Amino acid sequence: MSKDIKKIGVMTSGGDAPGMNAAIRAVVRACAYYDIKCLGFYRGYQGIIENDYEEMSPRSVKNIINKGGTILKSARSKDFRTKEGRQKAYDNLKEAKVDALVLIGGDGTFTGGLIFSQEYDIPVVGIPGTIDNDIRGTQFTIGYDTALNTVVEAVDKIRDTASSHNRLFFIEVMGRDAGFIALNSGVGAGAEEILIPEENIGLDTLLESLKRSRRSGKTSSIVIVAEGDKTGENVFELAEEVGKRLPEYEAKVTVIGHLQRGGSPSCFDRVLASRLGVKAIEFLLDGKRDIMVGIENNIITASDIDAIKTGHHDINRELLRISDILSI
Amino acid sequence: MSKDIKKIGVMTSGGDAPGMNAAIRAVVRACAYYDIKCLGFYRGYQGIIENDYEEMSPRSVKNIINKGGTILKSARSKDFRTKEGRQKAYDNLKEAKVDALVLIGGDGTFTGGLIFSQEYDIPVVGIPGTIDNDIRGTQFTIGYDTALNTVVEAVDKIRDTASSHNRLFFIEVMGRDAGFIALNSGVGAGAEEILIPEENIGLDTLLESLKRSRRSGKTSSIVIVAEGDKTGENVFELAEEVGKRLPEYEAKVTVIGHLQRGGSPSCFDRVLASRLGVKAIEFLLDGKRDIMVGIENNIITASDIDAIKTGHHDINRELLRISDILSI
Amino acid sequence: MSKDIKKIGVMTSGGDAPGMNAAIRAVVRACAYYDIKCLGFYRGYQGIIENDYEEMSPRSVKNIINKGGTILKSARSKDFRTKEGRQKAYDNLKEAKVDALVLIGGDGTFTGGLIFSQEYDIPVVGIPGTIDNDIRGTQFTIGYDTALNTVVEAVDKIRDTASSHNRLFFIEVMGRDAGFIALNSGVGAGAEEILIPEENIGLDTLLESLKRSRRSGKTSSIVIVAEGDKTGENVFELAEEVGKRLPEYEAKVTVIGHLQRGGSPSCFDRVLASRLGVKAIEFLLDGKRDIMVGIENNIITASDIDAIKTGHHDINRELLRISDILSI
Amino acid sequence: MSKDIKKIGVMTSGGDAPGMNAAIRAVVRACAYYDIKCLGFYRGYQGIIENDYEEMSPRSVKNIINKGGTILKSARSKDFRTKEGRQKAYDNLKEAKVDALVLIGGDGTFTGGLIFSQEYDIPVVGIPGTIDNDIRGTQFTIGYDTALNTVVEAVDKIRDTASSHNRLFFIEVMGRDAGFIALNSGVGAGAEEILIPEENIGLDTLLESLKRSRRSGKTSSIVIVAEGDKTGENVFELAEEVGKRLPEYEAKVTVIGHLQRGGSPSCFDRVLASRLGVKAIEFLLDGKRDIMVGIENNIITASDIDAIKTGHHDINRELLRISDILSI
Repeated sequence: MSKDIKKIGVMTSGGDAPGMNAAIRAVVRACAYYDIKCLGFYRGYQGIIENDYEEMSPRSVKNIINKGGTILKSARSKDFRTKEGRQKAYDNLKEAKVDALVLIGGDGTFTGGLIFSQEYDIPVVGIPGTIDNDIRGTQFTIGYDTALNTVVEAVDKIRDTASSHNRLFFIEVMGRDAGFIALNSGVGAGAEEILIPEENIGLDTLLESLKRSRRSGKTSSIVIVAEGDKTGENVFELAEEVGKRLPEYEAKVTVIGHLQRGGSPSCFDRVLASRLGVKAIEFLLDGKRDIMVGIENNIITASDIDAIKTGHHDINRELLRISDILSI
Repeated sequence: MSKDIKKIGVMTSGGDAPGMNAAIRAVVRACAYYDIKCLGFYRGYQGIIENDYEEMSPRSVKNIINKGGTILKSARSKDFRTKEGRQKAYDNLKEAKVDALVLIGGDGTFTGGLIFSQEYDIPVVGIPGTIDNDIRGTQFTIGYDTALNTVVEAVDKIRDTASSHNRLFFIEVMGRDAGFIALNSGVGAGAEEILIPEENIGLDTLLESLKRSRRSGKTSSIVIVAEGDKTGENVFELAEEVGKRLPEYEAKVTVIGHLQRGGSPSCFDRVLASRLGVKAIEFLLDGKRDIMVGIENNIITASDIDAIKTGHHDINRELLRISDILSI
Repeated sequence: MSKDIKKIGVMTSGGDAPGMNAAIRAVVRACAYYDIKCLGFYRGYQGIIENDYEEMSPRSVKNIINKGGTILKSARSKDFRTKEGRQKAYDNLKEAKVDALVLIGGDGTFTGGLIFSQEYDIPVVGIPGTIDNDIRGTQFTIGYDTALNTVVEAVDKIRDTASSHNRLFFIEVMGRDAGFIALNSGVGAGAEEILIPEENIGLDTLLESLKRSRRSGKTSSIVIVAEGDKTGENVFELAEEVGKRLPEYEAKVTVIGHLQRGGSPSCFDRVLASRLGVKAIEFLLDGKRDIMVGIENNIITASDIDAIKTGHHDINRELLRISDILSI
Repeated sequence: MSKDIKKIGVMTSGGDAPGMNAAIRAVVRACAYYDIKCLGFYRGYQGIIENDYEEMSPRSVKNIINKGGTILKSARSKDFRTKEGRQKAYDNLKEAKVDALVLIGGDGTFTGGLIFSQEYDIPVVGIPGTIDNDIRGTQFTIGYDTALNTVVEAVDKIRDTASSHNRLFFIEVMGRDAGFIALNSGVGAGAEEILIPEENIGLDTLLESLKRSRRSGKTSSIVIVAEGDKTGENVFELAEEVGKRLPEYEAKVTVIGHLQRGGSPSCFDRVLASRLGVKAIEFLLDGKRDIMVGIENNIITASDIDAIKTGHHDINRELLRISDILSI
């Protein structure tokens, strides 16, 4: 099958993640190595529809491995959700003689790609790039490790001021559906409590735990709250409610927000992105299609997009368990 | 006069700032150098009232020069605002034979100290420690430089995602009364607009400027907003209003919040804190009292607290002017 | 068997690594959780011999999860290599009623512990803490991930100056016997060449590759060299030799050195250390002894020290292969 | 005179420094603001001789304010030291209709520029960009503040390992002729001793001081050594000699090296570079020539290059004095 692939397109779609540039670089350089032409489409599917691309050479991707964001820019494309949009995309790809697409993004990106592939017979390969780590078929997504470091560095700073003032801080981190960032950064930052959507401990348990913390001699506390947690309406109301019920606390809120998506990628994310990017091209050359590359037990794998498109892997229950032990 | 000073007390009060520990270290070591005993009081004036202190030796302050927060902890003391509280504080100091106080904090701290000094004849020396840089009598306060670096690093990360998605970001930074952090971090981060309390440009000018930015080819924009700015009710309503009036923008908000107060101090803040801490003791030994140490043109100065207690120095109009040129 | 463990000792030994404090914290808190007393011995085996320890409570380990180095200090103990030294160590442990030892360190530490356990019937559990990642029985050692980030951040900075001046930089990283740090940081930093002890490419191949780099349009190059690499006598002579043979290059050398061992641990290392520390205690309570805890495919494992004491796992050949593709 | 300036050239020369890109950006945008054309010459004077330039617009310098190095690259030009080289440079500038040059670099760069200006009547304006801070006529040079932060962060990491192992570390920092980096980073890092070219304390004083440190209870020590210090032949021989004379110490050496030149500039350096860059253009428009812009007491100044070309300002004796007090 490898003879079929003479030119590919690569794009980034959905929320950006640190390491996407390292993945683009790896894709582009693997193409050069295997003598395949490579077009970089801007703003995800929208760039295909608008024919907004440039041809990429190894030098196009120099000095980007350490840059956050994505040089190909990212967007969510409404047009691509329409039959007309996808037809236009296909026409453009055919005109440009693109034989396959490499999609760097999250599960929404892959699902869209699968539909497109099935409609127009364009092989697609997905590379998981999202800070949320919420994609089945890979132990780690590109950007997740960096986001964890960004969060723990931010919490370390807030800890300075929390312990100087004997305060209680509620810190919201990203994760609408999944508690991966909250759980791992919470353990990493030494948080007293971690609130995640997968495990609703309830307000009373939280209050009890905070009282116990104080009795055990802690004078300041950090509670990490995933965006999707439902202990309170939102983190501000949660803090207010706790403040009312435990008036001896001075409760404060910080929402870490979009800075979690940026920053120079960690070594882990750069290496992961580099490995996934090269293998994406090699899998295509081996005739694989409609797959996502992933990593399991330090080996690069290929999973059918069809098989991973619903749900995501579970949080680490063992880690959740030991988080209680660690905050004693 | 130096014969009078055999034992001093040192404390941190008000909002904590990176570099306070470096100042404590310098005070403690200068005391050891000049053979003065030094007591560290916890939680500012409250610790004096509660007699909560420990004697400090050069080894008590090892490995703290690079730590954020304050090992002496900080608090705002309601009791110290009462005559009874201050009487108790004085009794404790007299009992402990403390001859003078070194106060690390902001103008509220110094004003309280001046009242106390006038009531009970306890010499006080202030060391300006606050990220806001809003104290007359010194070009720089301890913590300000670090806070600027923290903000620009955060904005750099948000810029990654802003430029990947062609977005407009409103980023709120600290500064209720003063735009120092906003103006300097805004120039440092290459912000398109900077909104500060000292200069209300108004919503129309802001909208006009953002439109001009886009016409000039910019696809993403960063607006830095000081807490105290009044262009909108608050940063969220401002972003919403701009979003309504410029629907082609996807406007997002990040409030950097308390992480601005934490983190390992920059070299600048460590050196500044070290110099101010040593000179605070030397000025006391020279017989000076009721002063704040400061820095002007790289020279350590002493200003009467009485003279600096109202208002703060102006923002740099020249910098404000060139910020427009830089965002062209 | 768990009834036997009422008091344990914990220590750090060998080269220090970021995350050792997080492991100590986890051990101490797991002990408190399971109602076991915990003594912290200073400077590894030497502290046992000198009876230099203190009892640890959950509050003894507060605010250390983010600190580099080890609060228990580390040393290599000559005395422990003697029969007399070990007898003294045993006598002290017996006197203090210590039932088992938790050893945080590298393979030398574990081998010493195994001998001791066999001589005196003191159960030992090892926790792998070393930046070198060169221990069989675990996919990752504590400190390795942080060291990789430290190296890539340093190389990123050197890249700034390398590409500003069109230079060739040789950068030596740690790894006397193993190329793990060099290979992974080299891929992460986008190095043009990576020289490791496991794969001697030879000077001619290196020269050829550097020439090819330049022909392909690269104006600056980074070569990462593991300490143990034998392409040249050492990195300085290697650079000189290359400079002679390729006079168009301005070759420079940087030895990153001991700063690789320090720094605040990454989230990955903090979580890893926390998990390993808790499980070390839980394995002891389950009656396991003379094992090392490790991580394989995200699961915490126990390996007999006897089985892991010689050799270390192989470098990732796949990663070595793709490093050539990536530097095209 | 301002009517004469319709087009300028800008270049970076000498050792690169963080913040040079911020200065380039400010120059380019100030040109756009004042409707002057701007050419960016590559590799300093060499690029003028080789006619290697491109026209710069405000968008040419987007997203560079936070990047280390220099997008215009830097070099030392032998050709420019010859009459023929300078003639060629002048011919090229005349052909391109360049009316003035903005030179970002150190004193060598400015001296070369002054000669050129006097020979060919091309006005030059210098912007001080060097990490060494060794230029008369400005309190701070661009890159110095960032380099200090880079050094103290590196020393903080080495301190982790030094205090874990009770070691003595000699750390060499840049500064062949001047001890600015060593003195300020030494105070900022809390070094026990600081060795600088301006003040040779001699080996005996150093040994005495190290012994006193240990007697006072310090178990590890850091000595910061400027490149140009002459206490030993070089830092390695110095460490060896000290190790021989104080055998109870385990002496180690780290040479921080070129990573001091790189990295994202601090906020201080970005703001400084931005202010200097804009004023360089405004001074040219005011008719000034053959000057260097600088900063004194927070005001941007212009100094005749002729007046600053020899020697550099003194180190801060006051800071040197207090460094002894601080390391007690």
